[in-house]
Amino acid sequence: MISRDPLDALDREDSLAGFRDQFELPENIVYLDGNSLGPMPRRTLARMIDVVREEWGQTLIRSWNEHDWISMPQRVGDGIAKVVGAAEGEVIAADSTSINLFKLLAAACRMRPDRRVILTEAGNFPTDIYIAEGLISLLGDGYELRAVEKAEIQSAIDDSVAVAVLTHVDYRTGEMLDMAAVTRTAHDVGALMLWDLSHSAGAVPVALAAADADFAVGCGYKYLNGGPGAPAFLFVAKRIQAAARQPLSGWMGHAAPFEFEPGYRPADGILRHLCGTPPIIAMAALEEGVTLFLEAEMEEIRRKSVLLSECFIALVEQECDGHGFELASPRDAARRGSQASFRHRNGYAIMQALIARGVIGDFRTPDILRFGFAPLYVSFADVWRAVAMLKEVMITAAVT
Amino acid sequence: MISRDPLDALDREDSLAGFRDQFELPENIVYLDGNSLGPMPRRTLARMIDVVREEWGQTLIRSWNEHDWISMPQRVGDGIAKVVGAAEGEVIAADSTSINLFKLLAAACRMRPDRRVILTEAGNFPTDIYIAEGLISLLGDGYELRAVEKAEIQSAIDDSVAVAVLTHVDYRTGEMLDMAAVTRTAHDVGALMLWDLSHSAGAVPVALAAADADFAVGCGYKYLNGGPGAPAFLFVAKRIQAAARQPLSGWMGHAAPFEFEPGYRPADGILRHLCGTPPIIAMAALEEGVTLFLEAEMEEIRRKSVLLSECFIALVEQECDGHGFELASPRDAARRGSQASFRHRNGYAIMQALIARGVIGDFRTPDILRFGFAPLYVSFADVWRAVAMLKEVMITAAVT
Repeated sequence: MISRDPLDALDREDSLAGFRDQFELPENIVYLDGNSLGPMPRRTLARMIDVVREEWGQTLIRSWNEHDWISMPQRVGDGIAKVVGAAEGEVIAADSTSINLFKLLAAACRMRPDRRVILTEAGNFPTDIYIAEGLISLLGDGYELRAVEKAEIQSAIDDSVAVAVLTHVDYRTGEMLDMAAVTRTAHDVGALMLWDLSHSAGAVPVALAAADADFAVGCGYKYLNGGPGAPAFLFVAKRIQAAARQPLSGWMGHAAPFEFEPGYRPADGILRHLCGTPPIIAMAALEEGVTLFLEAEMEEIRRKSVLLSECFIALVEQECDGHGFELASPRDAARRGSQASFRHRNGYAIMQALIARGVIGDFRTPDILRFGFAPLYVSFADVWRAVAMLKEVMITAAVT
Repeated sequence: MISRDPLDALDREDSLAGFRDQFELPENIVYLDGNSLGPMPRRTLARMIDVVREEWGQTLIRSWNEHDWISMPQRVGDGIAKVVGAAEGEVIAADSTSINLFKLLAAACRMRPDRRVILTEAGNFPTDIYIAEGLISLLGDGYELRAVEKAEIQSAIDDSVAVAVLTHVDYRTGEMLDMAAVTRTAHDVGALMLWDLSHSAGAVPVALAAADADFAVGCGYKYLNGGPGAPAFLFVAKRIQAAARQPLSGWMGHAAPFEFEPGYRPADGILRHLCGTPPIIAMAALEEGVTLFLEAEMEEIRRKSVLLSECFIALVEQECDGHGFELASPRDAARRGSQASFRHRNGYAIMQALIARGVIGDFRTPDILRFGFAPLYVSFADVWRAVAMLKEVMITAAVT
């Protein structure tokens, strides 16, 4: 039996507890939806006022140099690189995850001109699939999207595959793939590997370099707390940067954007993956989220994340036993990201009732209740209260 | 001879004079670079604080519904539609101008499957050319970019052209093309017409519907004052919306984004041109710029814009005669956007010296000094001071 006291003890001993005050969080809310939209770091408000009133308002166009707006995609990218186990110059912040997927899938196909398959998982986050479809509609020429079940991924990566695009942590169940093993399988048959880190970056330790990954994309507005619709990021390993060319060849990716040359000449390194003018205000908000995140140790974040999810799963199974919940996430914490998901046939109604009681998770069709555990601001008391409210919903709200 | 007094009289009679106080402008600056980055509307700061502290900070994920974040691309787009002579549901705010160019060029090529030419102007803004190159690198199959001189545009549009992509107002000279006439030429041979309105939207009256334009893109951070790197916009005429499909098919352009369907199904109408999650903070800043802009009458803006530029050109020629300036803009105001450009062999150094004296224009390689006239905040006294400083530079700064 789990009781309140040991959870309180965990909060008292929590080395990350001080981070909670760094976030603006409404009173009386348990926020378990940072995997959908991270909350606002308090410092971000001050930065927004500064970038708008001073940098834009007072320094105007000169801020591109005087406040170094021009290198923000690279600077913020270098910060994110530390979160995902990449080196300086391997990551930029830019555009959206979807756009970045398009760039890197196209670059990968170009690097494997004799292959015609983009491999993905059938249950991948839809935009990954939709974007691959869009690219294929342009490429024509026999290209196909092969979407397989999670269990078949390793065996489906054969030498017809140009690039495999997979999400590291499943958005519904939180199931985490073995990045190094899958990447090795891809490389063994000469395929390239593109990881979607939207539910990984800031949630679990990611080691792109150690896993020998080729490409990655990810999201700025979830665990990196960069704000609603924050710029996304992309990673290209140094060893393939010279070979990787992407077709969204806007002026900011040009070797000399302000020379206004008549033909496109890609910048060296990661900068060729920029396209249009970077969104400075949004980029500044993301920078605050990233720098705050980097003040914590990833190992401590992971340790607390596992503890929070383990407590939550155990408590739900203890308190809501017999109410029809089925764990949708892997029971083994080593195979799970920083979320816990349960299936329930009335999942949608239950989540609405929970939200009405101040416990914010979310629902994913057809029957999944998702609860995200972001260790920088979620406490063990939050876990206790979330489950207490879930139990109350099941007992009183007639949604069984 | 133009003297100070009649300029002061023009300021006194200026029906738009009240708008200047709506902008945050530094003291002692003459800002003639709104064609590169518009200044900050005062209301934007308040909106930024509200969207960050209240909407994001307090309402969190629920703001997608409660503050209607989800329809911002459409709502802001409907505002911009009024600026460019389009109807509701024909414009969305999204991504960058470069990304939007890619979407619409690809859609256009798909609608003319038997044609292989993308036509543009050799002197077009480089990103328009670079993006067309990038698309062609994916399409292969005999596609080519045909870049012709401005004078040859009309004759070069023949029945091999799938789409002509042209910038309405030239970024260097301010020369304005006849949108209706060129569009008619394109349609006469069955080609589609895509207008880049980056230097037009908010600068000159634009009548997309009246000109029967098919597609357009434009910029949010110039005359619309949406902030550095603001979201861009795109237009697709209602009559071709069902036929226009674009390949950056991210989840936000899906008919049912939250159903997480396994295959892409484009939304009806303009929404299919969305791709990733919209950047809410940046979108809110753009919305303030657009709503402020819509409080003025376009005819008054144009009338004052012409007067400002005419006075500026005449004053430069009167005060700086013999100093080597050559008008790069059309002398006929009807063929000129809201800027005046002069060539000078020491253009770069002259502009640096001007900026040091608080008159901010910009320089475009190889020899162009650009001065933008945004009637909402530029006064006739500004024109007077700008030319006085230019004269001072030429006399004292040894940059002849």
